[in-house]
Amino acid sequence: MTLAQEAPRRGRHAPEKVNQATLIIKGNDRPGIVAAVTSVLSRYGANIEALDQYSDDPQGGSFFQRTVFRLEDLAVALPKLDADLAEALGADFDLEYTLRDMSLPKRVAIFASKSDHCLLDLLWRHRRGELPVDIAMVISNHPDTAEEVRSFGIPFFHVPSAGADKSAAEAEHLRLLEGNVDFVVLARYMQILSADFIAKVGVPIINIHHSFLPAFIGAGPYAKAKDRGVKLVGATAHYVTEALDEGPIIEQDVVRVTHADTAADLQRRGADVERAVLSRAVAWHAEDRIIRHANHTIVFA
Amino acid sequence: MTLAQEAPRRGRHAPEKVNQATLIIKGNDRPGIVAAVTSVLSRYGANIEALDQYSDDPQGGSFFQRTVFRLEDLAVALPKLDADLAEALGADFDLEYTLRDMSLPKRVAIFASKSDHCLLDLLWRHRRGELPVDIAMVISNHPDTAEEVRSFGIPFFHVPSAGADKSAAEAEHLRLLEGNVDFVVLARYMQILSADFIAKVGVPIINIHHSFLPAFIGAGPYAKAKDRGVKLVGATAHYVTEALDEGPIIEQDVVRVTHADTAADLQRRGADVERAVLSRAVAWHAEDRIIRHANHTIVFA
Amino acid sequence: MTLAQEAPRRGRHAPEKVNQATLIIKGNDRPGIVAAVTSVLSRYGANIEALDQYSDDPQGGSFFQRTVFRLEDLAVALPKLDADLAEALGADFDLEYTLRDMSLPKRVAIFASKSDHCLLDLLWRHRRGELPVDIAMVISNHPDTAEEVRSFGIPFFHVPSAGADKSAAEAEHLRLLEGNVDFVVLARYMQILSADFIAKVGVPIINIHHSFLPAFIGAGPYAKAKDRGVKLVGATAHYVTEALDEGPIIEQDVVRVTHADTAADLQRRGADVERAVLSRAVAWHAEDRIIRHANHTIVFA
Amino acid sequence: MTLAQEAPRRGRHAPEKVNQATLIIKGNDRPGIVAAVTSVLSRYGANIEALDQYSDDPQGGSFFQRTVFRLEDLAVALPKLDADLAEALGADFDLEYTLRDMSLPKRVAIFASKSDHCLLDLLWRHRRGELPVDIAMVISNHPDTAEEVRSFGIPFFHVPSAGADKSAAEAEHLRLLEGNVDFVVLARYMQILSADFIAKVGVPIINIHHSFLPAFIGAGPYAKAKDRGVKLVGATAHYVTEALDEGPIIEQDVVRVTHADTAADLQRRGADVERAVLSRAVAWHAEDRIIRHANHTIVFA
Repeated sequence: MTLAQEAPRRGRHAPEKVNQATLIIKGNDRPGIVAAVTSVLSRYGANIEALDQYSDDPQGGSFFQRTVFRLEDLAVALPKLDADLAEALGADFDLEYTLRDMSLPKRVAIFASKSDHCLLDLLWRHRRGELPVDIAMVISNHPDTAEEVRSFGIPFFHVPSAGADKSAAEAEHLRLLEGNVDFVVLARYMQILSADFIAKVGVPIINIHHSFLPAFIGAGPYAKAKDRGVKLVGATAHYVTEALDEGPIIEQDVVRVTHADTAADLQRRGADVERAVLSRAVAWHAEDRIIRHANHTIVFA
Repeated sequence: MTLAQEAPRRGRHAPEKVNQATLIIKGNDRPGIVAAVTSVLSRYGANIEALDQYSDDPQGGSFFQRTVFRLEDLAVALPKLDADLAEALGADFDLEYTLRDMSLPKRVAIFASKSDHCLLDLLWRHRRGELPVDIAMVISNHPDTAEEVRSFGIPFFHVPSAGADKSAAEAEHLRLLEGNVDFVVLARYMQILSADFIAKVGVPIINIHHSFLPAFIGAGPYAKAKDRGVKLVGATAHYVTEALDEGPIIEQDVVRVTHADTAADLQRRGADVERAVLSRAVAWHAEDRIIRHANHTIVFA
Repeated sequence: MTLAQEAPRRGRHAPEKVNQATLIIKGNDRPGIVAAVTSVLSRYGANIEALDQYSDDPQGGSFFQRTVFRLEDLAVALPKLDADLAEALGADFDLEYTLRDMSLPKRVAIFASKSDHCLLDLLWRHRRGELPVDIAMVISNHPDTAEEVRSFGIPFFHVPSAGADKSAAEAEHLRLLEGNVDFVVLARYMQILSADFIAKVGVPIINIHHSFLPAFIGAGPYAKAKDRGVKLVGATAHYVTEALDEGPIIEQDVVRVTHADTAADLQRRGADVERAVLSRAVAWHAEDRIIRHANHTIVFA
Repeated sequence: MTLAQEAPRRGRHAPEKVNQATLIIKGNDRPGIVAAVTSVLSRYGANIEALDQYSDDPQGGSFFQRTVFRLEDLAVALPKLDADLAEALGADFDLEYTLRDMSLPKRVAIFASKSDHCLLDLLWRHRRGELPVDIAMVISNHPDTAEEVRSFGIPFFHVPSAGADKSAAEAEHLRLLEGNVDFVVLARYMQILSADFIAKVGVPIINIHHSFLPAFIGAGPYAKAKDRGVKLVGATAHYVTEALDEGPIIEQDVVRVTHADTAADLQRRGADVERAVLSRAVAWHAEDRIIRHANHTIVFA
């Protein structure tokens, strides 16, 4: 059982989400799961505001459920509710679950390089109230966007990448991130993360790949797309795993192009798709709408 | 309480849906509804295969739920399950519900005129197994498509429309439909139905309107769209009510056009959207994925 | 004949567009137009880089052509080329034309209010080099975005709107704009322009309307869209005329929504479409890709 | 110089296209090409109805132009016009060109297997007048669709595929096609063509691949897409070359899917994209809107 009901922590509260919680459940499908969960919630007088469930095979497949509920004095009730769910779900059904108080937004670090379209789009949306996250910091291997990032009231750290040996830079990253963030977003960060870093950072990492994966894996996808004469270019947001560009896909989209578009045009058109796709992925992750399973995702969008 | 558990009727069975049922619930939102429903189902050992719910306002709004479950010997258990649900939902929560055995596909009559794109698309999809309906008949005010329709093994009735007074034709329609169909689809049927007919037919009617409603209401929408210089043309599937072109919208889509497209081109491009939108609406209605509420629809697609 | 070859003016040059010109032609269709135009250009040794033409009816309709060409020492050759075109097109064919040196970007004023998504997107695209315009100023009836606009190096003028009588504010607008801009963009500017202002300003005005026109004309389109239960929301960029929301449509797009989206969600989803649609319209106008005709546009995108 | 002005042949005429011709030009870009072409056409009194041109690099790249014109007594004038163009384009500019009388629709053979969605969509669009081709025959390795095809008034030939050695079947194909068709369409034909056949058939072959190439090359793309957890599935129409799935891409499109779609659902959703993409590719080829160059296409859609 994964128990993610975090210790109460200081931080920005989302007042309209006080007393609102998400419950994510995952495990082997068996009759009675939904009833078991909802009857526990019902005993507490919780009002279910959204419930999505999916089974990849009703005969013995895997089961996934996302429930959003509202409960008066949630913070007080949470420990006991958690214990009751642990018994109902863990003991009886052997299910994993995650219970989270939604008034505490997830804390995120954004990694960026020179290209600013994905970074700025996230900062704008956050300022407009569209991204329910707490942006703890921006880390970049280039100093170019420092002033702009800080104008949003967000700390900016410049960690240069020094050639092939990334260990010093990555050690610095880990010092900055440790204990401070719940996930990391690579907003067109042009450095490859080492397997060691991925293992040590201990939080999910979301990347935006500038192609419709699995087409044009790796570097220079727009040049490859131009070369192949494709009529659509795309972008893919995915979780980072050790297998480069092979992690679970969260979201994808495409835009139409023609023979008259140069490789530079494709890159420009693609940038619009990249920022749109990444912002959707980040919002969904922030709201616990994504469940990872094998190398896939279940997205209750 | 609406009780739609139909009397067992002769007809084509969908073998892969034997023992599968849908339960649609609608009413005022209150804590505990999901738990109450799922605990009844759980008592019977039903396995919930899909569950979607929506509340238009968690504080005192309306609540909607669609549940698909599988239950051994469903046909035997149905009457008692229905009585238990009636008590749990009706008595305790004052909710309306509909319970339906999915192995009995809904029976539909398709109305058409000269234009065949929507009609043929429905017939093709049905033959391919994409539309879980029983097409009882095609009724047209033109004889043109008779041979083609019959080549699909489906009865075709020619009911000419004779000028302004539609009462004789509509009386003929009612004779053909009565007791034979669960809903009607207007597949580019170019006659306006009278309020009297709509009241008497007693089953839902789905229409495809060749514009993105509420733009270009009424006749000649493609000419109007050309005239207005729009850059997208669309189509809208909706339930028919007495208020022409104003019934609850089920589905919409658009396609891009340019200044170089003539009004005839818009009509051609639009026809592709019309058949796509209508086929989605019919499939969703067939699978009880649409709940009507006020002048809207909730679509659990 | 409209002769828009502007007097050489001081200003930012686009170095990669030196010696590049656009020639827009409009008039009654007759055989031989394309040959007449291209033979004049050929005599000067101009290299045609793009040529688009459209006739709304090859038998006696209207003819539209956009030609982009490159010519060494364009600035020197322009007056004589213009005279030759005047003779070839005006005298022989009675066509209107516009000839423009593309190294002099059009100067634009952006009008905004509190909502910043369209404004920021234009400023950011301009900084990235995606919008070939010279942003002369931003005018707003709210002071909120002053600092952000100025951080892009662009002058910001706060002109409050004082109740029903707009004459003082509009007089101030005209003083700021006169002689300084080639077109105006309303980037979610929430004030209605008077017919008097539109007549006096003397340059094209582009507006972004937050709906798929002609659906939901006027104020509050997202609330209306929610009310009508539509499945797509859209945005429309159009030229402003005295007839509110009725000017020639330049570009439109839509995004899919569901019953679960609140009116506020529609507004958020719609904002993404608005900024995308407006930025395309502005770029096309800047590159002389749009020809107005009757209440339509021909867009050589 | 490619000279494709075909010898007058018997066949179905398209009356509304009498006196209409397309002229396709391809070669090294140099100043004066457009003027040279249009002045020849102008001398004949031809009225240019559409003209598109593209240069992949105005400084020494390749040049492509499509011109549609109308000329009284075209059939009479064609030989002399052709000779004049040969001189103006071939001698002076070393350009290849193709001149075609549009009143003679291209003749096509459609190859199909069991799956009928692409085949039927083409036949139906042809009957509606949307595809300006002469469908000479349908060839299938399965007899299933014979009756349906013939109900459209089109000859059907059943040529079974007998195991690994395709030489006998391909010899039969060549006998049927020789002299009878101008291009071939593979409408979900599930057999791989040999290099020998491709060389001998001597006409362009268009295939529809059921994925967004270059993702999921080869067999079973929907299963692969499900496995990879993609959020969009696509289809690609391309010209067939010896390099399987690597020929020049003509058109592509995608449709959104979710985790809840099974591999069979992806196939169903994909079938809609396949038929739409293939029908666009066939219409564009029929109207000489596609120019092949290197491994790309220029599409003047």
